Amino acid sequence: MNESSGPPSEAGAVVTAALLVIGDEILSGRTKDKNIGYIAEYLTNVGIDLCEVRVVPDVEDEIVAAVNALRHRYTHVFTTGGIGPTHDDITADAVARAFGVATDVDPRAVALLLERIPKDQLNEARLRMARIPAGAELIENSVSKAPGFSLGNVHVMAGVPTIMQAMLDGLAPRLATGRRVLSRSVPAGLKEGDIAGPLAAVQAAFPDVSMGSYPSFEEGVGFTTTLVLRSRAEARLAEAEAAVQAMLAEVRAGRAADT
Amino acid sequence: MNESSGPPSEAGAVVTAALLVIGDEILSGRTKDKNIGYIAEYLTNVGIDLCEVRVVPDVEDEIVAAVNALRHRYTHVFTTGGIGPTHDDITADAVARAFGVATDVDPRAVALLLERIPKDQLNEARLRMARIPAGAELIENSVSKAPGFSLGNVHVMAGVPTIMQAMLDGLAPRLATGRRVLSRSVPAGLKEGDIAGPLAAVQAAFPDVSMGSYPSFEEGVGFTTTLVLRSRAEARLAEAEAAVQAMLAEVRAGRAADT
Repeated sequence: MNESSGPPSEAGAVVTAALLVIGDEILSGRTKDKNIGYIAEYLTNVGIDLCEVRVVPDVEDEIVAAVNALRHRYTHVFTTGGIGPTHDDITADAVARAFGVATDVDPRAVALLLERIPKDQLNEARLRMARIPAGAELIENSVSKAPGFSLGNVHVMAGVPTIMQAMLDGLAPRLATGRRVLSRSVPAGLKEGDIAGPLAAVQAAFPDVSMGSYPSFEEGVGFTTTLVLRSRAEARLAEAEAAVQAMLAEVRAGRAADT
Repeated sequence: MNESSGPPSEAGAVVTAALLVIGDEILSGRTKDKNIGYIAEYLTNVGIDLCEVRVVPDVEDEIVAAVNALRHRYTHVFTTGGIGPTHDDITADAVARAFGVATDVDPRAVALLLERIPKDQLNEARLRMARIPAGAELIENSVSKAPGFSLGNVHVMAGVPTIMQAMLDGLAPRLATGRRVLSRSVPAGLKEGDIAGPLAAVQAAFPDVSMGSYPSFEEGVGFTTTLVLRSRAEARLAEAEAAVQAMLAEVRAGRAADT
């Protein structure tokens, strides 16, 4: 078994995911989320397509509804936040309720907590961090020991970025993954409005290669554009990039002739 | 009329919002979103409660479904992304479809584009940026002129952060807003597990003040905690903060006695 890339999956299989970010502090703007971008990039690199993200408050009904909406639709659901020892940490209970299973203090989780926390400090609040839904598999936390868990296809992780990242590293080897989406960035050096027509024609010729156009704006400099081509097939990606480069050269030549 | 704070609303009225971030580039991790945190903080400051965020791909059916799910549930829906001139900019059409109205080139939007773009460069692609759903009100874009729009309670903005921010400034004065949620941050200087029990008791005594506990972790230093109290009533917030400070002092004294 290849420890770094997860269980083998069918060649070309598409493995999808949603991310559920749980926390009032993200919605109030007090905490700026750092997990969405990290997880998005991580999943792309291991061959899992992130298809949707939701951010919901620390309200059990909202978490339950979101977990159930997402877990039936995607191969994997990842959650961040709400698994600490305080009263607003309700993710484990909400996920258990979404699956209709009980939650209880799990001896495996208690053993992990005791690796870090002296026994006389393992109070009722800290024991909340060992409450794990029945049937769940633990996700290791190499930073601070309190584990996350996978229940079915839902993977529950901490909200603190360093801990979430450690959990994702622990979790990834056992995830079903698919064929990676490969991408190429092409700096266009032109404004979107000057290439949009010919770009649409190239896109039409390569329906199997997704072509995104991303403007950026700098005060005083104005707009420029980066084109991003994405496909699971390296050969098609190379052909599409050549077609895009030829299109860009033609637009540039046309502009030079204008002046 | 107060230009800076929107139309008057009932005292104490709660005004809610969802944010819909549209873009494959966020889900692939290539672009790290900078709009969620900005908009969350902005809305909190003007008295609008952000209750949910979704990120969806550049797929018309997904955008339509999300717009319709959110617009019936919240006072406002804000969208970012997908209003440029290229083939992957499909937000205007998707929002129009969600409302069942037509989209066409809007003379008001063309006039704005002509303030920046010479007439002979206003090609078919750039005219896409003037396609506005029937019945929509334009949102001014002081950075690059191409407008956003409000259709009913859905406010469609650019994805480029500087432009989105300018649009939000243009839009805010006409939004219904509510009574601001006020907040106080209390650095606890203690671990969550040491205060979780007494904190839950304080929370129970102040059901109208939301108390969040946010751990942060630094390698080598370990965990610390920030408590955030939130309420629309300044007096209750002050009472709750005093109760929290007293609780923290008691926990610290207990710990000092232990050692």
